[in-house]
Amino acid sequence: MTQTIPGIALIGAGIYAREEHLPKLIAHNANLLAVYSRSQKSAESIVEAAKPLTKKAASIKAYSDESQDNLDALLGRADVTAVVIAVPILALPDLIRKCLAARKHVLSEKPVAKDFKTAAALISEYEMVYKPKGQLWSVGEQFRYDLGLRKARELIQSGAIGDLTIVNARVWAAIKPGNKYYETMWRQVPEYQGGFILDGGIHFVSVLSFVACQEITETRGFSKQIAPHLPPLDTVNAALQYNKGAQGCVSISLASTKTAFDFVFIGTEGTLTLQFMGKFAVKLDGKQQFEETIDGEAMSTEIKTYLDALSSGSSEGLLSAREALHDLAVVESLCSGGGVVQTL
Amino acid sequence: MTQTIPGIALIGAGIYAREEHLPKLIAHNANLLAVYSRSQKSAESIVEAAKPLTKKAASIKAYSDESQDNLDALLGRADVTAVVIAVPILALPDLIRKCLAARKHVLSEKPVAKDFKTAAALISEYEMVYKPKGQLWSVGEQFRYDLGLRKARELIQSGAIGDLTIVNARVWAAIKPGNKYYETMWRQVPEYQGGFILDGGIHFVSVLSFVACQEITETRGFSKQIAPHLPPLDTVNAALQYNKGAQGCVSISLASTKTAFDFVFIGTEGTLTLQFMGKFAVKLDGKQQFEETIDGEAMSTEIKTYLDALSSGSSEGLLSAREALHDLAVVESLCSGGGVVQTL
Repeated sequence: MTQTIPGIALIGAGIYAREEHLPKLIAHNANLLAVYSRSQKSAESIVEAAKPLTKKAASIKAYSDESQDNLDALLGRADVTAVVIAVPILALPDLIRKCLAARKHVLSEKPVAKDFKTAAALISEYEMVYKPKGQLWSVGEQFRYDLGLRKARELIQSGAIGDLTIVNARVWAAIKPGNKYYETMWRQVPEYQGGFILDGGIHFVSVLSFVACQEITETRGFSKQIAPHLPPLDTVNAALQYNKGAQGCVSISLASTKTAFDFVFIGTEGTLTLQFMGKFAVKLDGKQQFEETIDGEAMSTEIKTYLDALSSGSSEGLLSAREALHDLAVVESLCSGGGVVQTL
Repeated sequence: MTQTIPGIALIGAGIYAREEHLPKLIAHNANLLAVYSRSQKSAESIVEAAKPLTKKAASIKAYSDESQDNLDALLGRADVTAVVIAVPILALPDLIRKCLAARKHVLSEKPVAKDFKTAAALISEYEMVYKPKGQLWSVGEQFRYDLGLRKARELIQSGAIGDLTIVNARVWAAIKPGNKYYETMWRQVPEYQGGFILDGGIHFVSVLSFVACQEITETRGFSKQIAPHLPPLDTVNAALQYNKGAQGCVSISLASTKTAFDFVFIGTEGTLTLQFMGKFAVKLDGKQQFEETIDGEAMSTEIKTYLDALSSGSSEGLLSAREALHDLAVVESLCSGGGVVQTL
């Protein structure tokens, strides 16, 4: 049945494409046929990076805007049935549209788009035009595949802390010049809301709803820029209202001299805490006790899930663009000083 | 100069009057002449409680509504020049007014009154009518005298953490039936905003401004009642905006299964943390390092400060009703789902 294995192209040749998507695609034996970047050099660098990882690297073809073998040529290939898109935030919507129009399945990176309005328009278009044709479009939020977070979610879902009453999150770090992600130009002069709060913070925002098993309906807070090198803002502090009654606070700052990555979920019968240091340490105190630091394998599981979805022809809920849209809507609410979280 | 020692009356015979005001007044050799309560039995119980503490207990006279020796009689004594008022929140304003009208100096317990409007009217009246006559009115907020909190405030004031950027507070406890304060009827059916959030929470709210050396100008958040036995609400989650630019979050719940009493003050050059377990543990991380759990001696210092103020004829800023009014205004903002913090 080899003919049913989807042929895949990787769109983008940045840090994350190289360090995460490429090795995970190879590890899961994806049929990687092509890679595209604006520059030929970047595209070929991904093919080079694949060589130590797989003997099939030689069959990966590089496409770029500097070559006749450009994006149109790539998308014209009938054997490429699916793409994985990992490009700067502002470039996402056009690429997603182009790939969908070329009848490809798509996995794109979070956030869906730079803002709710753009993302919602894209999702509506997808659901009206492409979904009925059986095309899959998923948005990557690897935290929803993190095994530590999944365990935390399961514990709360199973009633291990009773009814969730209070959520409290503190995500504090210092993104400094020299940070490899900071040194990508599109992140230094972000032409989108929130800067790193959108780009990196959205992962932690996803935890707030995913683990709570409740959606945030409104935030009330303040935002500001502390570090001069992190425009347009690097810090949000907000209160949260959830749809099933929980309330809470979230403080995110990427210009903090103190580091913290901790989440507290308090219920009527116990408390679940999460601390993140590359892996999530999950701790449950209540009628039940649990404590374990879990290797999340998030990106691996995300890619595996997408490949499985391609094979089966149906995509899973947690990868859906609508889930990612909720996270984006919460970030937008946080960045704009609070407000009702928009829904489609 | 014994004739200049102020004669003092203790108004109120509740738990805090018995356990804190009485022994602290005696410890500082206050010239305690009288005690008043609505019931004669309660008033006499305070005199009894004084006996093991001082040989002068016999000279403390009990006044009550059940006796000819009632409040008017007490306030008619020329040798009683100052009062300490520790009564339920709703009874405070009338008693304060009555004592001021009788030309007494007053130390009353926090909160100033049940709400900003009532408190502001009282303060205006005091400043117009009684202050010009040299009468002192102070409002007790012992946390402003706590030696641990004073050390923390000094460190921040001295620039030990650079410019304050983020404040984060978590005050979580479970007030249960059986708690000695809960078992006072006026607290079980509070006819004032916030219930225990006002009554007990205001101490922790005072930390937010006192240690930060900045005042809170606006809060944005949510409030709710989790425990059925704690009306009208027991939980607030809010974002904070300070007048000198700091922002933050505060989460207070007195119906939480998880306990926490911690405050984080993040600056551009370091972090100061406070943890409270009867005493404040003060920790500074930055250019300077500091770590000490400090015996606060808060009530003792507050009473001593009041006695000194009576002797010198001028009251200190931190005991002022206006300081207490700010705390009350912040609580009111928190309890009402956020808003601009009112000022007089």
